[in-house]
Amino acid sequence: MGKTNCTRNREDLACYAYDATARTYMPDAVLFPQNAQEISAVVNLANKDGFFVIPRGAGSGMTGGSLAVRGGVVLVMARMNRILKIDKDNLIAHVEPGVVTGRFHKAVEKEGLFYPPDPSSSEFSTLGGNVAECAGGPSAVKYGVTRDYVLGLEAVLPTGEIISTGVQTAKGVVGYDLTRLLVGSEGTLGIITRMTLRLLPQPEVVRVMTAVFDKIALAAETVSAIIRSGTIPRAIEFMDNASIRCVASHLKIALPVEAEALLLIEEDGKPDEVDLAIEQIKALCLSQGAKRVEIAGTKAEAENLWRARKAISPALFQYGPDKINEDIVVPRSKIPDMVKKISALRAETGLTMVSFGHAGDGNIHFNIMLDKKNEAQLKKAEGAVEALFDYTLQLGGTISGEHGIGITKAPYLAKEIGNDAMNLMKKIKKLFDPNGILNPGKIFPSA
Amino acid sequence: MGKTNCTRNREDLACYAYDATARTYMPDAVLFPQNAQEISAVVNLANKDGFFVIPRGAGSGMTGGSLAVRGGVVLVMARMNRILKIDKDNLIAHVEPGVVTGRFHKAVEKEGLFYPPDPSSSEFSTLGGNVAECAGGPSAVKYGVTRDYVLGLEAVLPTGEIISTGVQTAKGVVGYDLTRLLVGSEGTLGIITRMTLRLLPQPEVVRVMTAVFDKIALAAETVSAIIRSGTIPRAIEFMDNASIRCVASHLKIALPVEAEALLLIEEDGKPDEVDLAIEQIKALCLSQGAKRVEIAGTKAEAENLWRARKAISPALFQYGPDKINEDIVVPRSKIPDMVKKISALRAETGLTMVSFGHAGDGNIHFNIMLDKKNEAQLKKAEGAVEALFDYTLQLGGTISGEHGIGITKAPYLAKEIGNDAMNLMKKIKKLFDPNGILNPGKIFPSA
Repeated sequence: MGKTNCTRNREDLACYAYDATARTYMPDAVLFPQNAQEISAVVNLANKDGFFVIPRGAGSGMTGGSLAVRGGVVLVMARMNRILKIDKDNLIAHVEPGVVTGRFHKAVEKEGLFYPPDPSSSEFSTLGGNVAECAGGPSAVKYGVTRDYVLGLEAVLPTGEIISTGVQTAKGVVGYDLTRLLVGSEGTLGIITRMTLRLLPQPEVVRVMTAVFDKIALAAETVSAIIRSGTIPRAIEFMDNASIRCVASHLKIALPVEAEALLLIEEDGKPDEVDLAIEQIKALCLSQGAKRVEIAGTKAEAENLWRARKAISPALFQYGPDKINEDIVVPRSKIPDMVKKISALRAETGLTMVSFGHAGDGNIHFNIMLDKKNEAQLKKAEGAVEALFDYTLQLGGTISGEHGIGITKAPYLAKEIGNDAMNLMKKIKKLFDPNGILNPGKIFPSA
Repeated sequence: MGKTNCTRNREDLACYAYDATARTYMPDAVLFPQNAQEISAVVNLANKDGFFVIPRGAGSGMTGGSLAVRGGVVLVMARMNRILKIDKDNLIAHVEPGVVTGRFHKAVEKEGLFYPPDPSSSEFSTLGGNVAECAGGPSAVKYGVTRDYVLGLEAVLPTGEIISTGVQTAKGVVGYDLTRLLVGSEGTLGIITRMTLRLLPQPEVVRVMTAVFDKIALAAETVSAIIRSGTIPRAIEFMDNASIRCVASHLKIALPVEAEALLLIEEDGKPDEVDLAIEQIKALCLSQGAKRVEIAGTKAEAENLWRARKAISPALFQYGPDKINEDIVVPRSKIPDMVKKISALRAETGLTMVSFGHAGDGNIHFNIMLDKKNEAQLKKAEGAVEALFDYTLQLGGTISGEHGIGITKAPYLAKEIGNDAMNLMKKIKKLFDPNGILNPGKIFPSA
């Protein structure tokens, strides 16, 4: 691959040793491949010489999917960053995995099109990383997650073959669904080298509003009431008091820091329809006990609201040097129960707990801020996470909505899916990657 | 399982020997299981005693997925037909596989909800069969296919284990996507025993219109023009002259039998929005050269239009005793090319060819009516299918949009996906079903 596409300098390696979990594992080398053939050659060598290969997008993953936990060669996909085609007639795009999601959003918007998946990291995360982790985002409540927009893939298998999966058309069912088997497989079954993505026409207008609640339980119940009313907004986001305070002080902006909860609700569509929907939701929020409802009048106001919402995750570190970050989903109607449970856990442990997320689809990002060097704190926090996961499963929920399993949730996988399903998944991994060279130590609990 | 759940009478077996391909293979026995445990017991016995097991919904599949091509025990899922729960708050339903799709549609509509997948066979096909084949239907252009509505499954593996996959929540990414690996796997990787399906709020109104074209090329171009205009209708269906004539005589109804093509376009949403969209599409169709546009004024008129569209497939047998039925998809913008190709093939072979289908997503159901006993006809027809598939792939299309591969398209699978992907799929089959007891002879070309 040539010297310019490869580095073993310690300073360089350090740049690719971390991710959003704030854990660090030094790789042995970092490569910047430019095409599938180069990747195939690296993979063949890895099988021959017995080294690990770890594909990496922007390193913004929340569960450690791109970390070189056992060393090895990190493949940074940044140079495979071409938007190959945006096909307006067929509402599809062909892209390479290193394209930054936000750049892709802008490119399709210029054509009057819309690519819904919008993880909070979209300004720096890559489409390849989004596909590998099956990223979601606020618009998932109405538009679904990354999985729903991937029509086909090109990927290098852990055994070196370059395969094409899926279709370039609106639909197709030709053999087993290798496309969706790769989506969300966290870089353990193949290295994605090209993607065919589905696009939609751009909604004519987007409007956003906030509803402020004195009581968090009222906010939680309002989410169900909105869905029951027969409309699915483009987003229904949720911030608890700790999130509101945190962002207000971090961004130095005015937010209702006394409120127990804030809902951020977005609608899109045709102008009349959106205006009507916003008015109906406003009335509904007020009737459910919202203290105040504000509709963003300008684009700048709307952008500020979203800036606040998206800043929560990085801003949290002002509460403590370490973060335990969970990504549970419960049936929407169970959000009030989950909110009560989190209050109880906070009272019980005395730990700083922050909840926010995609309330519209029941997806709560639950964070404990702590100092992991404080062993008593850490033990309490781990107990709280365990209790939270148990309760999530009891409510019919899942332990990962959109962040994946990676390393941080691997110990809990079997609890949700059972041993038979986990063993089947392990066998699939072994089938794809007999020598275990690709992204080891992820998803499955270590032996 | 008891005598009442099992039969080996020849008359009974004959009832489960056919499907919509009109091919017949006699099973050795037919069982009517009532739960996953019974199925697991049968599967365990099959592995021990070495017989084949073939799951079967309504037998309405188009590619032979439910046929006992090598004999064995057919599992008819008709007794597992309970709608277990329709959860309005969380927009999900729990169902058993034997539920007839049309019955499920009615049940969710009663709750003000909507389950979009609507194969033309929905009055008799089952949800389990729909999931196994990843059925589509007219509304796929706007709402996607069955895959997009399956959140989780319970299934009996070919090795007897009962596993749960996926989630009961709006989203989730916990390990490999076994759910979508089972969806569309045509009953070869597991026997689905329970499904969690995603629902939507019911659109307030649905309106349908037809546009009649003298020239088929104009109709084909109009489809692209509609999509380019920035709206995705609920359906854009297409009937060629042979389809129109066939249905008109079969149902004895008035249809524009002189037209080269008819588009059936449906919109849904809020009343004002739908009225506006219908008027805009009407204007667009006329500007594209439609001879006449008619908007269904009443529900009865709309139902009649759909009755005509859905009657095509069974009505075709008046053109010949045998049908070769293909289900190609091309990028929407390539429909005009495909229409030209079909005309050329018709002229070249002199065979009766009928095309109709889901033009909105480029999915054309292409049929050749013939007498298979006439060897010259059969040879010509097979040559035409081969030429059509080659051209489909050349246009960036797929050989199966929603009917699956089954037995009828197995010889063509590698042509589309390549040997590496096919070998990987074969290995997945072997991993799931080491003894090869489940639904043998499907998807992969016979050795």
